[in-house]
Amino acid sequence: MEGGRVHKRGRAGMLALLRYLGRMVSEIIELRGHIIDSLILPKVLDEILMHGGNFKIKEIKIGQNRVNQSYACIEVTAPKHEALDDIVLRLRQHGAEVMEKADAQLAAAPADGVFPTDFYVTTNQQTFVRIGGKEIEVLPTIMDSGIVVDRKAGRASTAKFYEIRRGMEVVVGHQGIKVAPMQRATSRTDIFEFMANNISVERPKSAIIREIAREVQRARESGGKILVVAGSAVVQTGASEHLEKMIEWGYVDLLFGGNALAVHDVENVLFGTSLGVNLDQVALTSLGHANQMRAINTVRAAGGIACAVKKGVLKDGLMATCVRRGIDFVLAGSIRDQGPLPEVITDAVEAQKAMREKIGGVTIALMMSTMLHSMAVGSLLPAGVKTLWVDISPGAISKLTDRGTFQALGLVTDIEPFLRELTGCLESLRASEKSSTKS
Amino acid sequence: MEGGRVHKRGRAGMLALLRYLGRMVSEIIELRGHIIDSLILPKVLDEILMHGGNFKIKEIKIGQNRVNQSYACIEVTAPKHEALDDIVLRLRQHGAEVMEKADAQLAAAPADGVFPTDFYVTTNQQTFVRIGGKEIEVLPTIMDSGIVVDRKAGRASTAKFYEIRRGMEVVVGHQGIKVAPMQRATSRTDIFEFMANNISVERPKSAIIREIAREVQRARESGGKILVVAGSAVVQTGASEHLEKMIEWGYVDLLFGGNALAVHDVENVLFGTSLGVNLDQVALTSLGHANQMRAINTVRAAGGIACAVKKGVLKDGLMATCVRRGIDFVLAGSIRDQGPLPEVITDAVEAQKAMREKIGGVTIALMMSTMLHSMAVGSLLPAGVKTLWVDISPGAISKLTDRGTFQALGLVTDIEPFLRELTGCLESLRASEKSSTKS
Amino acid sequence: MEGGRVHKRGRAGMLALLRYLGRMVSEIIELRGHIIDSLILPKVLDEILMHGGNFKIKEIKIGQNRVNQSYACIEVTAPKHEALDDIVLRLRQHGAEVMEKADAQLAAAPADGVFPTDFYVTTNQQTFVRIGGKEIEVLPTIMDSGIVVDRKAGRASTAKFYEIRRGMEVVVGHQGIKVAPMQRATSRTDIFEFMANNISVERPKSAIIREIAREVQRARESGGKILVVAGSAVVQTGASEHLEKMIEWGYVDLLFGGNALAVHDVENVLFGTSLGVNLDQVALTSLGHANQMRAINTVRAAGGIACAVKKGVLKDGLMATCVRRGIDFVLAGSIRDQGPLPEVITDAVEAQKAMREKIGGVTIALMMSTMLHSMAVGSLLPAGVKTLWVDISPGAISKLTDRGTFQALGLVTDIEPFLRELTGCLESLRASEKSSTKS
Amino acid sequence: MEGGRVHKRGRAGMLALLRYLGRMVSEIIELRGHIIDSLILPKVLDEILMHGGNFKIKEIKIGQNRVNQSYACIEVTAPKHEALDDIVLRLRQHGAEVMEKADAQLAAAPADGVFPTDFYVTTNQQTFVRIGGKEIEVLPTIMDSGIVVDRKAGRASTAKFYEIRRGMEVVVGHQGIKVAPMQRATSRTDIFEFMANNISVERPKSAIIREIAREVQRARESGGKILVVAGSAVVQTGASEHLEKMIEWGYVDLLFGGNALAVHDVENVLFGTSLGVNLDQVALTSLGHANQMRAINTVRAAGGIACAVKKGVLKDGLMATCVRRGIDFVLAGSIRDQGPLPEVITDAVEAQKAMREKIGGVTIALMMSTMLHSMAVGSLLPAGVKTLWVDISPGAISKLTDRGTFQALGLVTDIEPFLRELTGCLESLRASEKSSTKS
Repeated sequence: MEGGRVHKRGRAGMLALLRYLGRMVSEIIELRGHIIDSLILPKVLDEILMHGGNFKIKEIKIGQNRVNQSYACIEVTAPKHEALDDIVLRLRQHGAEVMEKADAQLAAAPADGVFPTDFYVTTNQQTFVRIGGKEIEVLPTIMDSGIVVDRKAGRASTAKFYEIRRGMEVVVGHQGIKVAPMQRATSRTDIFEFMANNISVERPKSAIIREIAREVQRARESGGKILVVAGSAVVQTGASEHLEKMIEWGYVDLLFGGNALAVHDVENVLFGTSLGVNLDQVALTSLGHANQMRAINTVRAAGGIACAVKKGVLKDGLMATCVRRGIDFVLAGSIRDQGPLPEVITDAVEAQKAMREKIGGVTIALMMSTMLHSMAVGSLLPAGVKTLWVDISPGAISKLTDRGTFQALGLVTDIEPFLRELTGCLESLRASEKSSTKS
Repeated sequence: MEGGRVHKRGRAGMLALLRYLGRMVSEIIELRGHIIDSLILPKVLDEILMHGGNFKIKEIKIGQNRVNQSYACIEVTAPKHEALDDIVLRLRQHGAEVMEKADAQLAAAPADGVFPTDFYVTTNQQTFVRIGGKEIEVLPTIMDSGIVVDRKAGRASTAKFYEIRRGMEVVVGHQGIKVAPMQRATSRTDIFEFMANNISVERPKSAIIREIAREVQRARESGGKILVVAGSAVVQTGASEHLEKMIEWGYVDLLFGGNALAVHDVENVLFGTSLGVNLDQVALTSLGHANQMRAINTVRAAGGIACAVKKGVLKDGLMATCVRRGIDFVLAGSIRDQGPLPEVITDAVEAQKAMREKIGGVTIALMMSTMLHSMAVGSLLPAGVKTLWVDISPGAISKLTDRGTFQALGLVTDIEPFLRELTGCLESLRASEKSSTKS
Repeated sequence: MEGGRVHKRGRAGMLALLRYLGRMVSEIIELRGHIIDSLILPKVLDEILMHGGNFKIKEIKIGQNRVNQSYACIEVTAPKHEALDDIVLRLRQHGAEVMEKADAQLAAAPADGVFPTDFYVTTNQQTFVRIGGKEIEVLPTIMDSGIVVDRKAGRASTAKFYEIRRGMEVVVGHQGIKVAPMQRATSRTDIFEFMANNISVERPKSAIIREIAREVQRARESGGKILVVAGSAVVQTGASEHLEKMIEWGYVDLLFGGNALAVHDVENVLFGTSLGVNLDQVALTSLGHANQMRAINTVRAAGGIACAVKKGVLKDGLMATCVRRGIDFVLAGSIRDQGPLPEVITDAVEAQKAMREKIGGVTIALMMSTMLHSMAVGSLLPAGVKTLWVDISPGAISKLTDRGTFQALGLVTDIEPFLRELTGCLESLRASEKSSTKS
Repeated sequence: MEGGRVHKRGRAGMLALLRYLGRMVSEIIELRGHIIDSLILPKVLDEILMHGGNFKIKEIKIGQNRVNQSYACIEVTAPKHEALDDIVLRLRQHGAEVMEKADAQLAAAPADGVFPTDFYVTTNQQTFVRIGGKEIEVLPTIMDSGIVVDRKAGRASTAKFYEIRRGMEVVVGHQGIKVAPMQRATSRTDIFEFMANNISVERPKSAIIREIAREVQRARESGGKILVVAGSAVVQTGASEHLEKMIEWGYVDLLFGGNALAVHDVENVLFGTSLGVNLDQVALTSLGHANQMRAINTVRAAGGIACAVKKGVLKDGLMATCVRRGIDFVLAGSIRDQGPLPEVITDAVEAQKAMREKIGGVTIALMMSTMLHSMAVGSLLPAGVKTLWVDISPGAISKLTDRGTFQALGLVTDIEPFLRELTGCLESLRASEKSSTKS
């Protein structure tokens, strides 16, 4: 009668005996929503069996068609309390709720920057915590954090190590936690969930890029913030002119990058070296580096990128366009940086904070040709943000989309033609927008 | 009342009207088996909605636990006959059966090497065809073929273009076809379905290699044939000594490769060049090529690999080991071949035939460092054959596992250390086998 | 007094002794041309020392400036005859000539398809053979072949294994052989030798693509044949429309590819599937394959590509454009082919022959997204043919350019945008050509 | 009479006229050393012509054999002073000295952190600067820096932006600078210069790894410091046990890495998760992350890695081995870090400084599976340090070796088997060392 893996190993009788003897422990969980076609029910059954548990479906109602929600009530059994606990924690990530509801357990942080033992670690899914019988949303949604509860204010917030102060009340265990996992939309108009995560090299990309342009347009129309994360290859491949157009047209609200992005941009503007490199391999030697160093020196002498723009030292390029258009940017430092430029935040923790402060309201993120920044920013975004990764290396794309949600799309392609085509599509959308505004 | 995508677009009313007017067509299909945890039900609902159809679940019984099978009866609706037909064809690939059963439709091949229009194209899943009210299994299971029916003999067989003769009766449409898709095993002891398709570079591989060794051992014990498909990198990286051991120990029943595999092996044996290359970059120039050409010439002069072994010209190496141990091999030609060696089958169609003839009974296939042969052989194997792909390029591995079934595993790693470790594991298994035989 | 590696190992004394005892052997070689700036002299000295020899520069004249040629006369010493012989053979590949000139040695082929032992293996450099005191050019220039001499006709020709008939006179050893290695041009207008072999992902490519367009234009103007080798990714990524334009405009004289190239093209034209795939991942499953099979069947039923075009079955696409414009194409088979289409040459050796027959007069070769065909065709071309490799995988590009000569260029980029941009450049060149013709 | 590119364009006459009119400028430079076989002379002539100059060889003496040095005296001509200046600066990087020797020019830094305009940018080659008629070596040798001169102390030192204080005297222009480029050794025993930069996937690696082990052994015997730079893949692939052995045996003097390296190590030790992951793909989800967060929390609670080792919280693993053996390590922060661990230097500039302070005396650097740290550390090392890069991605390896010197070697392979084999070789060397010590 009992199922799954354990049964298969022919120990069904012993298990029945164990339960009879009170040695098997169980918990009843409930699932609601599009649990069939969002693959939630199968995943839940999988998790139970994969981690040594067993299940009995007590009740199931399947929505007759797509829009109807479904419901399942499942008894989960495991041989030990620890194992059951581990399984239920996993099931919570898929939206499972334990039937007998209890408040979250809290413990005080033992020291500044240190969580209490067994603190609950958040995911990038919308999360609620039950305090005093009430469910409170944990804000902001950010993964790999703890949850600090302010009982007086009735508030629960995610916190990173550096935000923890001794004595703060932090959620421990996973009792009283409810996760609301992203479910697939019932319509199929959205390229970010409609497509597989990973667009291979062999696929035609024009139609996909056209759809991405539409999503960017939709984000702007709906007032969502558009974040661009750019690696220095954007400048080196000559793609920055396209990105500048996107900024000019109002399609970029926020630009994240590293010192190298700005340095290559400034060098390109001041010395035209990237152009000079075009047909001149030799320029890759010492003299090319010298230009880079002089570009940095020029900006440092001017007091920074913004000052260099104001003083007329820096007239063109990606960074000047940001400054002129008032686009917020964060340049984060890394150990391979030269200089760095004055605006660069060299401390990694400070740079993370600066990025976190600015990403509120972002609904679409375009990550281009940078693994380091893409992973850093990716871990700061809630699961619902539409995220595009563009990189020419299939390895980088698989790494990035490995952690993917329904809302992520990886594109293996060259960044310069990608941005050229995206800009072309946006230009068409702008044109039809205008003509429709007129009429 | 109607669900899905169409409904969402607010055309429910029109659809209801259409059906009322007899313009909507529908068919009732059934699903049986582990349709929840093998993800079959969700995929079926997905296919219906993705292709413009709609569904109504008429009956559903979910197995309470893992071993119990489930059942679903679904009414599929679409606006046109063509669309419904297309959907039902897709659902058949997931094991769906149409309730009102009918015989398959047959048409005569119009010419040698040409199928009738609208011929049914097979997949690599076990397939049955209903003829005269009886279900006959289509043999052998091979994808991208047509189905030829011999009504008198009550036999249905897959056939490639070159096997078709004018007048043969071929299945057209998809009526009367039943596919039995691979379902995930209820136990979790099998690495080939337990793991994700794709093992990334960052993962520890020792445990996985140990499991693969056990699978190879199990295949041998159960009398399944073990197929090795090897690229020339196996020889070039110095890994052939490991493969030779596997052959000596009886772990290889069949070796598929190209001319280059054998040429590199012979050159290595006769001139030690791969070893000579070790610390000698210069040998990559003309003289290295000369050795290759002379190696080919020597084997041609001897009348082929087997003759060269018999005459004592070729004493060692991979090919000599195969000849001495009587291992069947197929060397398929390609346009970049030098020579080629006499045993090489230069005609692509003939080489495919030779491989097809030999793969009957193969239960495990190890594909190493060759994209071309891996794809060619992969398309000849039924879905149930456990298939391992090893390649150092993540791009190659994703390409190969893209078409993957539950029984496929891709490993991104260097072939020489992989084979060294695999051989080490097999040696341990042999040792414990012997000691257990003794006791 | 003696230098090099041997000396460094502290065996100078012994070597001096050996020579005194007449056990050291030596030969005097001469080098002529741009031996300094084509790096020939350094390479020659390197080869001598790397292979256990030693040298003494007896005379050297360096051209004072770029256009002046230089001359060096070098005594090469080695401890044994075999070693000296090996060294001198290597030096010949760099253009070295032995001072005391002798005729080439000939031996009769022992059997059909078998060279005599120690046959000279050609490179892709222009080669001369001294017969009866006269130097004869070996034609055609093709690597990895033997040299057959027809003394009566005073002709020397390269021959592959399959061209050898018993009794033919073949050059053995390397006496009497003179190689004329490609030297770098003194001007720097040529992108194929001016650039490094390998253009990395980070480099801006527009300027390079513009230069490639100019080279293609120059080839056409000078009457050189333009060869395109295309993988199926050209069609799959939607790039075939660009290639069709190039054909229409007269920029393609010869198209080499595989069965898959033509099959994808036909499927695209007949079923629009590649477009259908655009936003429809699901189409990658069985039904996508069915379209491919039906496309093949349609062409087979029509009697081949050319017939399908004539009958109006195939109206558009890459293959139809070739047929309509009378462009010569070779489709070579491989073991992963479906079908194949009637025009495909399934035998690898026959396909090589067909390609060899057509490549005479080719001055520029564009190899796109196919490793197998690129390597196969690359080994058929003389060193002087300008060769471009385009592939998105840096691994493929390094493999291809590894064997590179001064005339090869590898570009790591996406094929669709590359061809789009190249076609754009060619369009501009056409426009300016026309306007200059008018005025 | 005049050569090169300019001449080819048929402007020889005009050039002669220009010079006659005093509009051509020239400078005489000298080259000494192994300028032929270290390819210095060809590169110098190349640079001149590539940048619009012209040359006349006034005198040349070629060493008759390998050990003899050569000498060349060349007149370089260019149409303008700026062009000539640019060319001579480039030639200096190849060791060229201007015949009429002058002192270096100095200018005061205009502000803290800002160099004077036109400051000389260093390379990673040994560099001398002429001050008061005397040549002073610039120390330490570090690329992409300026040169600060302390005339009173007779000292010249490289300085980064952050080390510059207002008023410091900095070298501007390139007069008075002499670079001593690495020349290839005359012996061929050194794998780091003997091999091509880039060892491809197809090559056998055992012999190379054996040679690397010998170099590591030699470095230790000669008292050179051995630096290991490790990415977190070293731990994730299960390779840290090998690295721990190397540390135990005294083969590592210095370990550089990031927060992730230490976090993965600690997580592995405390929770065995990397092992738990082995056969358990699901552990990649939320719970795996939770272990990582708890590992960080544990070390933070203990007050850092060193404290955690002392308190017995951390008993094993890479970091504990470093602490117990007193091995110096630098953990540099990055924006994708979680935590971070207390020892991590989160400020990029501070981390650079910490690394620079420790690398004095390093003679061999092994960089494993980390692009970011490899590039950062690579830019801090003088050209003479033997540098090995190991990475499974050919793209990463080409990027790293692009900037390569004679002393760099890139190996495309899997890190775990690489380290296993390297450790095996070192074990053998240790064994033979001991036995030879005994006897």
